[in-house]
Amino acid sequence: MWYFDSDYLEGAHPKILERLLATNLEQTPGYGEDHYCTSAKEKIRTACECPDADIYFTVGGTQTNALIIDSLLHSYEGVVSAQTGHVNVHETGAIEFTGHKVLPLPQYEGKLSADDLSAYLKSFWQNGDREHMVFPGMVYISHPTEYGTLYTKEELTAIHEICRAYQIPLYLDGARLGYGLMSHRTDVTLPDICRLCDVFYIGGTKVGALFGEAAVFTHRNTPAHFTALIKQHGALLAKGRMLGIQFDTLFTDGLYFEISAHAIDTAERLKDMFVKKGYALFMDSPTNQQFIILENDLIEKLSKEVSFSYWEPLDDHRSVVRFATSWATTEEQLNALEALI
Amino acid sequence: MWYFDSDYLEGAHPKILERLLATNLEQTPGYGEDHYCTSAKEKIRTACECPDADIYFTVGGTQTNALIIDSLLHSYEGVVSAQTGHVNVHETGAIEFTGHKVLPLPQYEGKLSADDLSAYLKSFWQNGDREHMVFPGMVYISHPTEYGTLYTKEELTAIHEICRAYQIPLYLDGARLGYGLMSHRTDVTLPDICRLCDVFYIGGTKVGALFGEAAVFTHRNTPAHFTALIKQHGALLAKGRMLGIQFDTLFTDGLYFEISAHAIDTAERLKDMFVKKGYALFMDSPTNQQFIILENDLIEKLSKEVSFSYWEPLDDHRSVVRFATSWATTEEQLNALEALI
Amino acid sequence: MWYFDSDYLEGAHPKILERLLATNLEQTPGYGEDHYCTSAKEKIRTACECPDADIYFTVGGTQTNALIIDSLLHSYEGVVSAQTGHVNVHETGAIEFTGHKVLPLPQYEGKLSADDLSAYLKSFWQNGDREHMVFPGMVYISHPTEYGTLYTKEELTAIHEICRAYQIPLYLDGARLGYGLMSHRTDVTLPDICRLCDVFYIGGTKVGALFGEAAVFTHRNTPAHFTALIKQHGALLAKGRMLGIQFDTLFTDGLYFEISAHAIDTAERLKDMFVKKGYALFMDSPTNQQFIILENDLIEKLSKEVSFSYWEPLDDHRSVVRFATSWATTEEQLNALEALI
Amino acid sequence: MWYFDSDYLEGAHPKILERLLATNLEQTPGYGEDHYCTSAKEKIRTACECPDADIYFTVGGTQTNALIIDSLLHSYEGVVSAQTGHVNVHETGAIEFTGHKVLPLPQYEGKLSADDLSAYLKSFWQNGDREHMVFPGMVYISHPTEYGTLYTKEELTAIHEICRAYQIPLYLDGARLGYGLMSHRTDVTLPDICRLCDVFYIGGTKVGALFGEAAVFTHRNTPAHFTALIKQHGALLAKGRMLGIQFDTLFTDGLYFEISAHAIDTAERLKDMFVKKGYALFMDSPTNQQFIILENDLIEKLSKEVSFSYWEPLDDHRSVVRFATSWATTEEQLNALEALI
Repeated sequence: MWYFDSDYLEGAHPKILERLLATNLEQTPGYGEDHYCTSAKEKIRTACECPDADIYFTVGGTQTNALIIDSLLHSYEGVVSAQTGHVNVHETGAIEFTGHKVLPLPQYEGKLSADDLSAYLKSFWQNGDREHMVFPGMVYISHPTEYGTLYTKEELTAIHEICRAYQIPLYLDGARLGYGLMSHRTDVTLPDICRLCDVFYIGGTKVGALFGEAAVFTHRNTPAHFTALIKQHGALLAKGRMLGIQFDTLFTDGLYFEISAHAIDTAERLKDMFVKKGYALFMDSPTNQQFIILENDLIEKLSKEVSFSYWEPLDDHRSVVRFATSWATTEEQLNALEALI
Repeated sequence: MWYFDSDYLEGAHPKILERLLATNLEQTPGYGEDHYCTSAKEKIRTACECPDADIYFTVGGTQTNALIIDSLLHSYEGVVSAQTGHVNVHETGAIEFTGHKVLPLPQYEGKLSADDLSAYLKSFWQNGDREHMVFPGMVYISHPTEYGTLYTKEELTAIHEICRAYQIPLYLDGARLGYGLMSHRTDVTLPDICRLCDVFYIGGTKVGALFGEAAVFTHRNTPAHFTALIKQHGALLAKGRMLGIQFDTLFTDGLYFEISAHAIDTAERLKDMFVKKGYALFMDSPTNQQFIILENDLIEKLSKEVSFSYWEPLDDHRSVVRFATSWATTEEQLNALEALI
Repeated sequence: MWYFDSDYLEGAHPKILERLLATNLEQTPGYGEDHYCTSAKEKIRTACECPDADIYFTVGGTQTNALIIDSLLHSYEGVVSAQTGHVNVHETGAIEFTGHKVLPLPQYEGKLSADDLSAYLKSFWQNGDREHMVFPGMVYISHPTEYGTLYTKEELTAIHEICRAYQIPLYLDGARLGYGLMSHRTDVTLPDICRLCDVFYIGGTKVGALFGEAAVFTHRNTPAHFTALIKQHGALLAKGRMLGIQFDTLFTDGLYFEISAHAIDTAERLKDMFVKKGYALFMDSPTNQQFIILENDLIEKLSKEVSFSYWEPLDDHRSVVRFATSWATTEEQLNALEALI
Repeated sequence: MWYFDSDYLEGAHPKILERLLATNLEQTPGYGEDHYCTSAKEKIRTACECPDADIYFTVGGTQTNALIIDSLLHSYEGVVSAQTGHVNVHETGAIEFTGHKVLPLPQYEGKLSADDLSAYLKSFWQNGDREHMVFPGMVYISHPTEYGTLYTKEELTAIHEICRAYQIPLYLDGARLGYGLMSHRTDVTLPDICRLCDVFYIGGTKVGALFGEAAVFTHRNTPAHFTALIKQHGALLAKGRMLGIQFDTLFTDGLYFEISAHAIDTAERLKDMFVKKGYALFMDSPTNQQFIILENDLIEKLSKEVSFSYWEPLDDHRSVVRFATSWATTEEQLNALEALI
């Protein structure tokens, strides 16, 4: 069986495990107060070209989203998101659990449009009745989006400027950030993100770590007593160094970018394989998730030897499916898939 | 100045004030344990033809919605509502404040469609990934809706049957229920509502009371220790008899229906006035809220002598406005308005 | 039957009902935007000698406590209270429902001690581990307390100074504030409270109103968009003028103080009656709640003709009971009670 | 420098790392749906002698406490705990964050007394006013407690019976459960805990894992859709197998018990070292945390070469300090400490 279901099917990049092994018996303080966390933060600051960044490590994506959004919003505020945003559809209401509404706007291949955002904010602030409505208190975008798509620098800048104008923070969910940065079709760099967003997170779980995300507040804008907030959300890891060691490894010698690039290269090859054999793409994704249109018969047949995600029905006899690659995708896997389609 | 802004511009129907005056010095226990509450509940049960109904009095609509929805949902569940539902747009996120997502579906003149509901629920329960999504735990409808429209008995029955099939409660927000029941164009009675809904509330605030709503659980399905839940939500009135006296008065000799009928009659006359003078209706509302299309110039001019609600722009030079009538609307007010348009 | 159970057994002071009657058909905007609210606020500002006060009207005590405490605290903060504080024991966890811990300190006849408070805050801020603990974010006191006792000006000043030193707000729950101010044994005035507290509320429900409390932020320290917070908490009354009219009446010609003084005078007479007949006081309360020690046999006998609150057992054959007076307590009631004991 | 600060200073037991390495490139489904989780659960069921147990893996202790307590309580209920319980003092209000009050009772060396519990529950249910109070909805105990002490089987049985009588679940926080089970002075076994508690968790973080706790519902009493609740709380690990592999390793060939026994043996030796040299114990702890009374001068001197936890001041010149041992404590470390005291 060959697996292309997601980018978190394996353990961690071998260098991470080696490092955990090498440091295992060292005694360090808990809760992220160790020197590995300090070192990892410094390396991330350097990669971001952002000396003013405050960095906090957390365990998973939903947890990070709920923590950051709840920490930055006032009680009467909600978070604006594309309708397809992960926080709106795929986190079992973790945002609402903290008391905040997700305010959905239309999506375009998973992306929020600056025009829609601007029109919505303008209309909200013109409404005399607004004390009866949830205030838009921040903007959430994912990059890559849930559909693998990417904002251009121009699009990101436009959203950034609207947020600035309305004085609300822009938050970027980077669960798969590495794949976005190493896409062959992006003009957005990590320093760009740092400059254009108020807060974002660099995903580890889906980019080669055992688990872990690095939340980056870009301009000394961390909420007061953020460690207390992390603890209150049940997100403070006792052996915090596990996160420090992983991110320190990922940001040493560009490993994070190298493994992301590998996933992009294999995704492009995978896409080409399908295109060459005459299959249609549901969308031409620039990152490591590829959305292909297949006959339902073929899906059934293929499923016996390859595992992938069923996305949604297209028409009576065809459906959209998703193939994902990762740092761990091998030549052998791709060849096997090619032989089957 | 003549006011048609809403149905809660005045105090209360004079009979309510008389009754408060007459009973003022009587000493009663607090928190709804008094005999006025008992009597009012019995009269409501009779009007509903529902001897198994449990009835609780609360102060306002948003409070009642948050209380009932939060009490009936599990933590991982949300409430399905038309996109325009009051709980989705006009309660400053009071539902999310209790931890629950409002799950919006398309609206048709403010109404939820049984087909959309059915398709949504079917799709949710077929989704293998549903533990990552908010579970649809109840259905919220308003009747009349925020646009003054009404469900037919057939529509209500269809929604009821879907809720039954999926074993989730149907909740009807009756902030303006009297106006719905006395509409000239409805086939839905109070006993119908009691039979087809699991819980609903009979609005007092907008139908002649100083304040107050009567929540009705229709088949002994009140959550355990509901009084504790009311208290926890900050909704337990110390002098609970204020609510009992008001609802007892409203449900004595059909006062609630009589004053609702008056609002409907005056609304129909108001609508006819506009139609006869050649104005277009935005929608032909069957209840006490009338949505008229006016030239922006006329709106400005009229506003100097009549007060009404601006609803939304229609095109460059016309807008939709709302005129509401109530138990208190007089011949004199209508004549004055007629003279001005 | 004669009732001394509480101070909210009757409707409202007759002048309030007269005023509601007189204004009933006037049309006003909703949600507290009417001129009665404006006028009432101005009169309260004058009575407080505090021109910078922001005033908001709410419906009940638990609602007001939850709203104010939740609005002023950060997520990681709790509210310090005497163990017997209403928010800690008698509100079905309405504070915790908003996500905040009540941090209990020892009580002395219902009062918090400045020394305990100071020691607790000092110890908290010295604790290196404090990010794992709930931060003390405000101090809650009730005045009169749940035991009818009062802070002296010296005690209140000491607590005020500690709050100032630690930069946390001091909040005073004045559910029965009138009785505290008119006690024969107090040196604390309404302007003192305004000067020494950051926020407090003037109780209406237990001091002659049908319902209603007036929250006072004393130095332009209202949280931003407080009306949205009120709405979100389900505490925004549609016909807000009901609150304005009541408080305007209570603060016209000193009515609030006059009816409070009546309750104090009758409470003192009631206490004297018991003392003269040889009964022991559980505590010598300076306000309208009197705590008497009675033989259990007598309690049983008396209960057939007089209603009062059972407080707690004292020993095998005696218990503490509470008698409360109010603006409505009459000579006739007291004489009847005297004849029975 | 020698460290005795806590039992989570190192990485993980070497066998766990070996296993992570050996399984690293295997592809498995996420979210705990892998075969390692299945195998680990089966081994835990066997160790518990409880074939009906439902087991869920989570990341950390505070997260697990908040998840389980919130999932089992109704909105109007709180959790009873000794005043010193971790949930009451050391989790930044994570329980209150989910809307529930911690109801504190007196503590005796960290333990809850069955008599206090019984008296409290009896009094609550006799109180006619209880709808105004938080309902006691479950009982929380830690074993070992925060002071390293243990319940006897008799004590645990007594608490179990009270919970049964009042029909509320008993929840045991086993963050350090291994040390409790392997204490030289306990008569409580893992099957006893399974029989006497409704739910408990087996701590991994503090007993040799990188991270991870195993929540055990003992009699098919898992709340419906618990995976959705885990996700909503931000506690669902994407690469869930990390938890499965760790617990599978810990429950293979009794490793969990073996490493716990090592910590107990070294703790006993450490205690003896202090006693023999004439130091007084603050309490004679039967587990891996030892509380010693030291002169403040010595504390200062010792701190230059040994790291340990300052607990609390005892008098003007002496304090209580804590030394903890773990699976990783070595002969060399103990010898070094012995030489210094």
